[in-house]
Amino acid sequence: MKGIFITMEGPDGSGKTTQIKKLEEYLTEKGYDVIITREPGGTKISEAIRGVILNRDFSEMDPVTEMLLYASARAQLVAEVIGPAIESGKAVISDRFVDSSVVYQGIARGLGIENVYSVNSHAIREFMPDVTFLLDLPAEEGIKRKKNQKELDRMELESLEFHKNVAEGYRKLAALDTKRIKVIDATLPIDEIYGMIKSGVEQFLG
Amino acid sequence: MKGIFITMEGPDGSGKTTQIKKLEEYLTEKGYDVIITREPGGTKISEAIRGVILNRDFSEMDPVTEMLLYASARAQLVAEVIGPAIESGKAVISDRFVDSSVVYQGIARGLGIENVYSVNSHAIREFMPDVTFLLDLPAEEGIKRKKNQKELDRMELESLEFHKNVAEGYRKLAALDTKRIKVIDATLPIDEIYGMIKSGVEQFLG
Repeated sequence: MKGIFITMEGPDGSGKTTQIKKLEEYLTEKGYDVIITREPGGTKISEAIRGVILNRDFSEMDPVTEMLLYASARAQLVAEVIGPAIESGKAVISDRFVDSSVVYQGIARGLGIENVYSVNSHAIREFMPDVTFLLDLPAEEGIKRKKNQKELDRMELESLEFHKNVAEGYRKLAALDTKRIKVIDATLPIDEIYGMIKSGVEQFLG
Repeated sequence: MKGIFITMEGPDGSGKTTQIKKLEEYLTEKGYDVIITREPGGTKISEAIRGVILNRDFSEMDPVTEMLLYASARAQLVAEVIGPAIESGKAVISDRFVDSSVVYQGIARGLGIENVYSVNSHAIREFMPDVTFLLDLPAEEGIKRKKNQKELDRMELESLEFHKNVAEGYRKLAALDTKRIKVIDATLPIDEIYGMIKSGVEQFLG
């Protein structure tokens, strides 16, 4: 069995976690050993880095620091978890991956898509996702959904304008790679979204 | 007054801290407002990143993760401290800077000098050191000097072979940029070393 690497992207509150659980069941039924990861995090070291990135007291964080921290957490996740899993034929579903950095730091923070890819190339090595689902949601709706959930972290506390740039950035990025990135309207019913994800995965598996 | 940026490099135990104190006095007498920084660290965020980098429990850290973490701590230090200080005409003396990453991660860990510079270019921006002093010490001697001082951190716990590669890497790097990097034999008496540093700075100030 060949490994498969699927990533779920989209703003906070777009329903990534729900869809990942459904997709996990589907791939398990297909016979895959399924590994679920989240970014930033997923290893002991990456979770420690996550603690620095999302700390609400670090509002003075420079965008370049932020970009490099996300890339460092990703490097460890690829080295310890994603790389070995893919190489041994497992299915990996990651809640966010490099596209998040491209959108949040490259586009919304203005560091540039090329700069973010260049830095992240060291972290990712050959492990680019096979298929990526972008759960597209208007920024206002994402914020509304998250607000009732828990204490917001440093990224979630960003302005509405920032989150609008994120939503717009995701659409822009998806347009650059329509083969890999499938855009799905996240305001649709959960089962309808899942149907689209399932058919996208089936299409890739052939 | 134009700002000046001086960095002190060399293995652990080579006497950087002692020389930085002496150089601080000299530059203060010259009329400079002097800022001392250390890497990794020097800002609230960079110190939190330092905590991750040097944590003895993180022996599984991937070299790429390590490279990106050092660069992220540096980016914040440049943005918050070094950049503003140089721009306002101050003297900055840093205990380690980008050359440490080039030597430790680029050469000793084998990631390559060019890769380390490429990643760090985002962190450093235009703030390359004006003068760098390399306190050159045989690896065995550096380890001997450090061992009695305190609990060793994750980097200090590395093998003798690693520390030999570091010492050799520093010499190699210095040979590539003889104009900026002044090599000083760290086994010489403290005052003799200081005399060389003082004359190197005087030469730069003209």
